[in-house]
Amino acid sequence: MRGGILPDYSERFRAGLDFVAEVRGQEAADAMEERLSKRGRRFNEHSVAASYGDVYQRDGLDLKSREFATLAILAAMGGTNDQITIHTHYGLDLGLTPVEIVELMVQVSVYAGAPRGSVGMYSVMKAFEERGIETP
Amino acid sequence: MRGGILPDYSERFRAGLDFVAEVRGQEAADAMEERLSKRGRRFNEHSVAASYGDVYQRDGLDLKSREFATLAILAAMGGTNDQITIHTHYGLDLGLTPVEIVELMVQVSVYAGAPRGSVGMYSVMKAFEERGIETP
Amino acid sequence: MRGGILPDYSERFRAGLDFVAEVRGQEAADAMEERLSKRGRRFNEHSVAASYGDVYQRDGLDLKSREFATLAILAAMGGTNDQITIHTHYGLDLGLTPVEIVELMVQVSVYAGAPRGSVGMYSVMKAFEERGIETP
Amino acid sequence: MRGGILPDYSERFRAGLDFVAEVRGQEAADAMEERLSKRGRRFNEHSVAASYGDVYQRDGLDLKSREFATLAILAAMGGTNDQITIHTHYGLDLGLTPVEIVELMVQVSVYAGAPRGSVGMYSVMKAFEERGIETP
Amino acid sequence: MRGGILPDYSERFRAGLDFVAEVRGQEAADAMEERLSKRGRRFNEHSVAASYGDVYQRDGLDLKSREFATLAILAAMGGTNDQITIHTHYGLDLGLTPVEIVELMVQVSVYAGAPRGSVGMYSVMKAFEERGIETP
Amino acid sequence: MRGGILPDYSERFRAGLDFVAEVRGQEAADAMEERLSKRGRRFNEHSVAASYGDVYQRDGLDLKSREFATLAILAAMGGTNDQITIHTHYGLDLGLTPVEIVELMVQVSVYAGAPRGSVGMYSVMKAFEERGIETP
Repeated sequence: MRGGILPDYSERFRAGLDFVAEVRGQEAADAMEERLSKRGRRFNEHSVAASYGDVYQRDGLDLKSREFATLAILAAMGGTNDQITIHTHYGLDLGLTPVEIVELMVQVSVYAGAPRGSVGMYSVMKAFEERGIETP
Repeated sequence: MRGGILPDYSERFRAGLDFVAEVRGQEAADAMEERLSKRGRRFNEHSVAASYGDVYQRDGLDLKSREFATLAILAAMGGTNDQITIHTHYGLDLGLTPVEIVELMVQVSVYAGAPRGSVGMYSVMKAFEERGIETP
Repeated sequence: MRGGILPDYSERFRAGLDFVAEVRGQEAADAMEERLSKRGRRFNEHSVAASYGDVYQRDGLDLKSREFATLAILAAMGGTNDQITIHTHYGLDLGLTPVEIVELMVQVSVYAGAPRGSVGMYSVMKAFEERGIETP
Repeated sequence: MRGGILPDYSERFRAGLDFVAEVRGQEAADAMEERLSKRGRRFNEHSVAASYGDVYQRDGLDLKSREFATLAILAAMGGTNDQITIHTHYGLDLGLTPVEIVELMVQVSVYAGAPRGSVGMYSVMKAFEERGIETP
Repeated sequence: MRGGILPDYSERFRAGLDFVAEVRGQEAADAMEERLSKRGRRFNEHSVAASYGDVYQRDGLDLKSREFATLAILAAMGGTNDQITIHTHYGLDLGLTPVEIVELMVQVSVYAGAPRGSVGMYSVMKAFEERGIETP
Repeated sequence: MRGGILPDYSERFRAGLDFVAEVRGQEAADAMEERLSKRGRRFNEHSVAASYGDVYQRDGLDLKSREFATLAILAAMGGTNDQITIHTHYGLDLGLTPVEIVELMVQVSVYAGAPRGSVGMYSVMKAFEERGIETP
């Protein structure tokens, strides 16, 4: 029934990589592109297109708030430790302060449960350490 | 930083509605479009484009299996009762048998927990009843 | 490859119904059997056999504690409102006090998040009301 | 081992109700206090103290952002429909715009899954309707 | 009240190990039996009996589809990395293609959220690497 | 609007550390305090106050049952491996037997899904090994 081809992700995929380069620098975007290439084209094109190439391109909510939302969602879901560390870097690059991110993990503790906040906090602290930020 | 505009969803949105019309009939697609229009353009364009207009357009996995996967995911997540009923209709239209869908709920019971299977089963049965299918 | 037949659930299914009759009374067991019959043989035989006919038959943990565990698990998972109400009845029949069940929901609030405790509490209170118990 | 008494929640409980009165008005706080009284003292004192009487009293993150985080967490968790409707009212009272809340649900769709965004959206729209806001 | 003994799992336990030997080979079944023996009899007898010795013995859904369902459920739940790797091996042994499994992870990304698909993908790729399969 | 200061956690924080010293010994409490100090004051004061300094101080449910509930909740949530290991130690110190904890993981397997029980079991066994307990 379907046309038997993948949808064309090239435009959104490229927009996604440009977004990463803007926020995290060209070096980070290149490193991501190389890392992603190991996951194969099928998964990665969709993955980059659907996140950085789509919702992060929308208006109506500033990027700092989008990143804050992503951190809240990831910590509430659980099982997303590496993603929390990565998005803590994005959040700091987009202007979130370490105190705001710690307070978000406190909010997660109350609404998604103490272990979600606590596990999230360790992943946040990993990004802090990679930048030499002392946990407030 | 962003261009301040929404990405262009028109192509994927239209492809998504065409998919619904193909699987469930034009009447169902029209009903969905009208129902969706009440949720506003921002949410719905993205919603239709990202699901029916994107992953359901991909090759590499037949539609019946995609629908089977969606039912498994929805039941495992919980809190998705109406979605399970809707996707049971899709699944039946795409060739899943009632026995296969019931057996899927048994599999969900074991791997995602007895209440996920049981709650899922009630939502599956709602679709069965709407079609006059006796639960096997 | 498989023998093409369902495993034989008859022994565990019967043991499960006997368990329900012991804890909740014969009338409740009959009502459950009738209600279950509407869900078809495939799902229900497995469902009763795997829960009441299996884990509730094991030694090593007293029934009151098993029921307490089930309530904790259900509330932590979310999306299980009716199951919490039903298992509150089991718990009270097996000797849990209303105060213990309320305190369990407080514990759920802290470890699985405030909304899980709060939603669970409403389902607990539904059982309390059905028995004329004032919420402590 | 414990002193056999509940911790003293009176100060945080009162601070929590004051917070509700500030954000949503005295009438809403009175209605909440009356509604809560039906859930019994044990659960409610803890519930109000731990949320409105504790994390919403902290500095380091402005109230609008805390509410935005709560909405993100609730939608990501699932099984929290009524809570999303209530917190949409809080969010609007604290200055979130309807567009920002809709965009949050789009972000939830991508990171916590399409059904979490979609189910969340219906609960958000319930609050919009109660205020006569057209969904953007 | 209970008979104070464990239910008899011997038949289902043996059927479960036979199933593993059929799908994955006798060596894999022996390795599993040895590995399981370290977890003690109480947990493992139930574990093998309830999964490989029960649902995988049922008719109504072919084994390849059951395995596909298990992979969908595991990825949607999160926190199941090792299980996804193991069941990717089962899936490939039962006839799923690498492309189908990757497409399943894309479907998981959309319906259970991008991080569930992404984390699942890494566990899938671990099995691919153990077999020398290049990620499509 | 808020007073711009953190709520005063000192009393609950101290009560929480005293609780840990009572259950696990002064050495364990000192080790926890030192470990916690690395996570910064903001997160830890709240964390200790809200768990050990609050719900574990309440009457109405004995400590052994609270700990049993915490283990059930953690295993049902998933993504909490280290927490399950830690709370297995608490549970054993508070009088839970190894058999009861293993049976709890069986109960989790049925109600929250086989992988939740299985993953939980590995974390339980880690605590058993640290104490030289053979898994029953």
